[in-house]
Amino acid sequence: MSEFETGLPSVRLIQSYIKDKEQVQLKLVTGDLLEGRIFWQDHSCICLLDASETQILISRPAIAYLKPNG
Amino acid sequence: MSEFETGLPSVRLIQSYIKDKEQVQLKLVTGDLLEGRIFWQDHSCICLLDASETQILISRPAIAYLKPNG
Amino acid sequence: MSEFETGLPSVRLIQSYIKDKEQVQLKLVTGDLLEGRIFWQDHSCICLLDASETQILISRPAIAYLKPNG
Amino acid sequence: MSEFETGLPSVRLIQSYIKDKEQVQLKLVTGDLLEGRIFWQDHSCICLLDASETQILISRPAIAYLKPNG
Amino acid sequence: MSEFETGLPSVRLIQSYIKDKEQVQLKLVTGDLLEGRIFWQDHSCICLLDASETQILISRPAIAYLKPNG
Amino acid sequence: MSEFETGLPSVRLIQSYIKDKEQVQLKLVTGDLLEGRIFWQDHSCICLLDASETQILISRPAIAYLKPNG
Repeated sequence: MSEFETGLPSVRLIQSYIKDKEQVQLKLVTGDLLEGRIFWQDHSCICLLDASETQILISRPAIAYLKPNG
Repeated sequence: MSEFETGLPSVRLIQSYIKDKEQVQLKLVTGDLLEGRIFWQDHSCICLLDASETQILISRPAIAYLKPNG
Repeated sequence: MSEFETGLPSVRLIQSYIKDKEQVQLKLVTGDLLEGRIFWQDHSCICLLDASETQILISRPAIAYLKPNG
Repeated sequence: MSEFETGLPSVRLIQSYIKDKEQVQLKLVTGDLLEGRIFWQDHSCICLLDASETQILISRPAIAYLKPNG
Repeated sequence: MSEFETGLPSVRLIQSYIKDKEQVQLKLVTGDLLEGRIFWQDHSCICLLDASETQILISRPAIAYLKPNG
Repeated sequence: MSEFETGLPSVRLIQSYIKDKEQVQLKLVTGDLLEGRIFWQDHSCICLLDASETQILISRPAIAYLKPNG
């Protein structure tokens, strides 16, 4: 999993959302729409904190799109 | 399958759920919502023990998200 | 396909189901629920024998979960 | 694509269906059920000949399962 | 992406459809059925020209099957 | 992720849409149809700017097809 390149624009954009505690929406391939702030990312997952501070471990391949919840 | 890196945050979070016998929810790409505690994980699967202690072998690519069932 | 590691817990669990002629349920990403016993596995597929001894070649990525049919 | 191993049980089973002009059913992840005989396989696809001898090029990842149409 | 092997039967069949300006149907995993002629293919996509000569860039993993529209 | 080959026809077509600020439609595997212009692409994502200039980070595997919104 050394192929997780922190210099990738998509990785850096998510990193900026983490740093700014940006509220985001994640649409999953299941059709689920999750909301919260991104806590961390790694090669295989994105960890979302929802409104009740629950850690939701989301599998990257299950993510359709991600955007600021503005 | 040597790329299963036990140092990854997502792998370690699941490892902590295993150790703590945390009750979790798994949403699958099929829409199924499974509940139980995680028995073990390997590169390709997560093994869940449901309420009747049945081993459910879940394929990683089929997992949309995972969270504590709190 | 040399990455099929027979020492993986998930591979060994399936191998034990094969040896014990365990009746299993397989939930597919299509929503199909297949029942029977596992005849063999390889890197890309699981071969299921249904009640009429028909060989059903199931693609691994199509499998959501697998459990004993108990 | 050198990883297409002709010695794999699943590849050999399909090869036997090709040789025997076995009528098969293919269930796809779209829910489609295709019927015909397998004309050839390669690393990425299975080519099916339907009743009107039309070549249907099926992407392997789209296949859920395959079985004799008996 | 050097693994795009132009000698593969599936790649060559599509190449013949391109050369012959064959009208084809593409069934996608979304259930969409697209029609037109294939303009070109590369490792990750197939470019379809529909009836109005619009270029539709189709992701390979999204393709379920492809057949002549005869 | 060094396998992101900028010389690929599909990558270059998207690059031309970026440069020309072409309005495009993206159909996702979820069935969602997104519209906007492509801001940038990298190995794993396409970043779309919608009508309100919101950055929508779209996972490549979630894309079914992409075409000019003409």
